[in-house]
Amino acid sequence: MAEVKKIMVAVDDSECSHHALQWALSNLHLYGSDVSLVVFHAQPLAVFNSAATMGVTSPELIEIIVNQQRQVSEAILARAKEMCAQKNVTVETVSEIGDPKDGICDAIDKLQVDLLIIGSHGYGMLKRAFLGSVSNYCVLHAKCPVLVTKKPS
Amino acid sequence: MAEVKKIMVAVDDSECSHHALQWALSNLHLYGSDVSLVVFHAQPLAVFNSAATMGVTSPELIEIIVNQQRQVSEAILARAKEMCAQKNVTVETVSEIGDPKDGICDAIDKLQVDLLIIGSHGYGMLKRAFLGSVSNYCVLHAKCPVLVTKKPS
Repeated sequence: MAEVKKIMVAVDDSECSHHALQWALSNLHLYGSDVSLVVFHAQPLAVFNSAATMGVTSPELIEIIVNQQRQVSEAILARAKEMCAQKNVTVETVSEIGDPKDGICDAIDKLQVDLLIIGSHGYGMLKRAFLGSVSNYCVLHAKCPVLVTKKPS
Repeated sequence: MAEVKKIMVAVDDSECSHHALQWALSNLHLYGSDVSLVVFHAQPLAVFNSAATMGVTSPELIEIIVNQQRQVSEAILARAKEMCAQKNVTVETVSEIGDPKDGICDAIDKLQVDLLIIGSHGYGMLKRAFLGSVSNYCVLHAKCPVLVTKKPS
């Protein structure tokens, strides 16, 4: 059995995803270990698609949207880095534009991740049916073990 | 953030569930730690229900079925114990009669488990629709984080 060498935590702007990172930092004894940690964020295409649907074709407006999206992503990863720094854990951050489901599963393959940690939004059945569940998708499709954390209610 | 103090691995007679236990033993550095390990097995009601459906009402026959079921459960847990012994990890084994989905989630509450580890059978979409997925159910309903392992194909 190959040991875990690389752990990836997938984060978005939700509290549950930062709880997932906090869980990993509190429980996996990463400080001083030879396990490397990656924090991954996908910049969802939904924003770009919405802009296109609303007929936004002006290059200037699209550039503004792209910049805003990048700033949000940078803020999310900066918060993650800060959380890791507080625990003296070195972290690599990776950001991709695209559907989070595919982005996470592709990153697992590309970065050779041995364990994915992801927070569950804890949606009810109805909301889950509409929004889908990124965590559920990853449990089914990721090529590595997946740990789903839950934010205490 | 409360640290993980008790980890439960759910096992059945499948290779994927023994792979889940092996994963835990290889990766969680349980030897010498103060984290306690529970291995849980649910004796599915399906066997009893099938007997009832086939019109088996003889107390002798039912006793034979119950005994066989218990022996299977004991063999599964004995294998798990042996795997833990090889890694010098102390383990508590728990067995319940009932639906594995409910049995696992109830045991998490009752035993105050902080992390569930369960193997994914990796069924295709069709088989999953028929059999349901215990791991998926637990990801959605267990009150603690759930780690789903996958047996390398």
